[in-house]
Amino acid sequence: MSKGLPKRSEDYSLWYNELVKRADLAENSPVRGCMIIKPYGYAIWEKMQAALDKLFKDTGHVNAYFPLFIPKSFLSKEASHVEGFAKECAVVTHYRLKNAEDGSGVIVDPEAKLEEELIVRPTSETVIWSTYKNWVQSYRDLPLLINQWANVVRWEMRTRLFLRTTEFLWQEGHTAHATKLEAVAEAKQMLDVYTTFAEKFMAVPVIRGVKTPNERFAGAEDTYCIEALMQDGKALQAGTSHFLGQNFAKAFDVKFATKEGGLDFVWGTSWGVTTRLIGALIMVHSDDEGLVLPPNLAPIQVVIVPIYKGEEQLNNIREKMAVLRKELLSRGISVKFDDRDTQSPGWKFAEWEQKGVPVRIAVGPRDLENGTMEVARRDTKAKESIKQEAAADKIEALLKEIQDNLYTKALQFRDEHITPVETYEEFKDVLENKTGFVAAHWDGTSETEIKIKEETKATIRCIPLNNTQEEGRCIFTGKPSKQRVLFAKAY
Amino acid sequence: MSKGLPKRSEDYSLWYNELVKRADLAENSPVRGCMIIKPYGYAIWEKMQAALDKLFKDTGHVNAYFPLFIPKSFLSKEASHVEGFAKECAVVTHYRLKNAEDGSGVIVDPEAKLEEELIVRPTSETVIWSTYKNWVQSYRDLPLLINQWANVVRWEMRTRLFLRTTEFLWQEGHTAHATKLEAVAEAKQMLDVYTTFAEKFMAVPVIRGVKTPNERFAGAEDTYCIEALMQDGKALQAGTSHFLGQNFAKAFDVKFATKEGGLDFVWGTSWGVTTRLIGALIMVHSDDEGLVLPPNLAPIQVVIVPIYKGEEQLNNIREKMAVLRKELLSRGISVKFDDRDTQSPGWKFAEWEQKGVPVRIAVGPRDLENGTMEVARRDTKAKESIKQEAAADKIEALLKEIQDNLYTKALQFRDEHITPVETYEEFKDVLENKTGFVAAHWDGTSETEIKIKEETKATIRCIPLNNTQEEGRCIFTGKPSKQRVLFAKAY
Repeated sequence: MSKGLPKRSEDYSLWYNELVKRADLAENSPVRGCMIIKPYGYAIWEKMQAALDKLFKDTGHVNAYFPLFIPKSFLSKEASHVEGFAKECAVVTHYRLKNAEDGSGVIVDPEAKLEEELIVRPTSETVIWSTYKNWVQSYRDLPLLINQWANVVRWEMRTRLFLRTTEFLWQEGHTAHATKLEAVAEAKQMLDVYTTFAEKFMAVPVIRGVKTPNERFAGAEDTYCIEALMQDGKALQAGTSHFLGQNFAKAFDVKFATKEGGLDFVWGTSWGVTTRLIGALIMVHSDDEGLVLPPNLAPIQVVIVPIYKGEEQLNNIREKMAVLRKELLSRGISVKFDDRDTQSPGWKFAEWEQKGVPVRIAVGPRDLENGTMEVARRDTKAKESIKQEAAADKIEALLKEIQDNLYTKALQFRDEHITPVETYEEFKDVLENKTGFVAAHWDGTSETEIKIKEETKATIRCIPLNNTQEEGRCIFTGKPSKQRVLFAKAY
Repeated sequence: MSKGLPKRSEDYSLWYNELVKRADLAENSPVRGCMIIKPYGYAIWEKMQAALDKLFKDTGHVNAYFPLFIPKSFLSKEASHVEGFAKECAVVTHYRLKNAEDGSGVIVDPEAKLEEELIVRPTSETVIWSTYKNWVQSYRDLPLLINQWANVVRWEMRTRLFLRTTEFLWQEGHTAHATKLEAVAEAKQMLDVYTTFAEKFMAVPVIRGVKTPNERFAGAEDTYCIEALMQDGKALQAGTSHFLGQNFAKAFDVKFATKEGGLDFVWGTSWGVTTRLIGALIMVHSDDEGLVLPPNLAPIQVVIVPIYKGEEQLNNIREKMAVLRKELLSRGISVKFDDRDTQSPGWKFAEWEQKGVPVRIAVGPRDLENGTMEVARRDTKAKESIKQEAAADKIEALLKEIQDNLYTKALQFRDEHITPVETYEEFKDVLENKTGFVAAHWDGTSETEIKIKEETKATIRCIPLNNTQEEGRCIFTGKPSKQRVLFAKAY
């Protein structure tokens, strides 16, 4: 292994970039702002997809696939949507290349210009609602509960691996309902699903809330969100679920015959999470030695490193460990037996530590004699020698313990970093020095929100659901306020 | 249900289009040539993905993700590749829209022109090999065994749902090896994997072969393929696996330090199957009543239709069937209990028949009294009354029988449609009247192949692997030939 990572305390941003690279998660591609998700990083995404997909299906959703391209005119149909999404996007203008006459390569064929430009989807509300128009005639056709796993493109100027990339992978749910009540319930249900996923799988505690109008999705009536806190005290929006009202139904003329014999516009929701979650996962749990993965999302949960001299010792260890591997696999625990003869055990230890494998087992000839093995956990770095019999029970319990410990630790850090403040001075001081979420009174206007953002870079992350109602005064304008909202600097 | 499908014997093409629509598999989108894969169609794709992904992983491959966009100059680096792929493709030239000054909507911002145009990937060899250059230094870094699930775009002029669409979904494997031997073995191994998938999951028999130079992948040294036969006697290329030689390694300068201390170019393969397989699945098994799905890929394997009057009867049936459903689910068999009160049993029978559900169970009040149920199989339309006890065993066995029967039937049809011919007259007669594969001697030149295609629309589908060697004379030129090759009209 090359020399250590930068320390989080010294340069958090550099630490993150180096960690992503050294843990073999992703790298920049030759195309500006687009990333290559390497096999180890993609294996985490596959685990995330499997868990989310099951949660979606368990709540009655099905998957489908809609086109990558959106006709330019579609974007203009929903007034606020076009403001939010049409601006920075990849535009397809031609459909053919031809050989340059001077033999210098291929050039765009000017004769193959599209009549109407196509936009590479930044999100799919428009193309999906234009389709729903044909799928919905009556209340009997509702609800539509559809999800799509797809790539999307937003032309970002400043990109960072996983956190903000021009192309990213995500899922986007798009549902259609007969009543407002049902659509709001769906939007909230999906926020629950995202919360379950973040907390039970990612071991990342989240605050559930609603966005201010200013931070709302372009085209939504309400945007619900889950907000997580990173170790550097910056917040990260980990998922959003939008109640769209009848906005897209009106834009695309999606009406249905009601049970009562009337005609009404359909109510909608949309909701999504992206490969940015991998960035959150890294930033919440990892340390100066490298990645720390929660067992529920780790591609490799247990690695076994044999310590041996010669083939005979290796074969003895392999034979003993084959029993344990089989036992662990039968419990659904993924195990790697690292018998590479090109690297030393120490090198392997460092590599698997950097890659965040939750449990490492080391077995040497003396262990074979004594019927023992050394078990090291990645989160606390504690080691202990355990007996080979009942090792599978022990390891299964340990994985659960690590999962719980990561969550508890992150929760404690998060809770210590929600700071109520009463004045703007205090607000700025906490933001700069303590960091984290700041719970402050706000007068409810976008104007104040924008000024605070300009002066401090902090945004209102959300108004927490079930927020305590208490009288107070806006830290910025002194106007009356009925509740605190959560500010933070954010990714 | 609306009136019946067109008959295959009368208008095969119309039958296919209507079937895709009525079975709720896919539809055309507002974007020319791009399809919307509807939930029921997508569920088949998910089943295909799961089976293929497991086969890939069992043979040591891992998944990763590479960018959607390819810089235009990359396409020019491999000489034959650019000829094959650069021509009909979606070209991104701008990265921003802006409001039109006349308020008419959004227009492309001329100031946001890309320095170098980006191509929406038609296939990813170029961007992947440009990356492999950084990943491979030594023989220790080899092999790379990587697959990607992705969308790709080829600007097709004439499109048909699933069979040929501008955007389609696929997987593309891209592997890199230290030796030619190993790369050829990999290309052949993946052909085996595709064969297993086609025969065991799709119940579609395939002919394994190698393409003539004329039909080879642009950039490959050899293209291996599996070819299937549709019910109208046209062939369909169901999957390809390419031995790339060192072509892409040379184009992107991917060299490695050999075990012996030398420096050599890396050897490559690539291989892919697409959503077109859904088209093949439909065309091989379905009939004039609608879709027929092999149980191994059916999203719903068993549907239970209760026949009842009033809530009490329905509840009795539901209760009895709950036991069976649980028993079937525990065996990994998917079951739907169709208790919609908006449709009659007859309507439901027709719908599930049209959607190709392999086994339909009907249960009425008399069945409850007698402890029986009616089981109907979709493939032969045979019905029988069976006892409720041991029903799960019976149904599990029936699903296996249906899977086998579909394969056997398709194999028999295929084998009856491989016709050896000795003369060009006979060749044309078989192509026009009997249809299917025609086994004929060919002089081995592209010139002859092209002339035959021009005159008859038939192409050489493949030279079968392990082909019988026999002396003969080319049906077109009379020149000597050492083996027969398989011609057919194809999708």
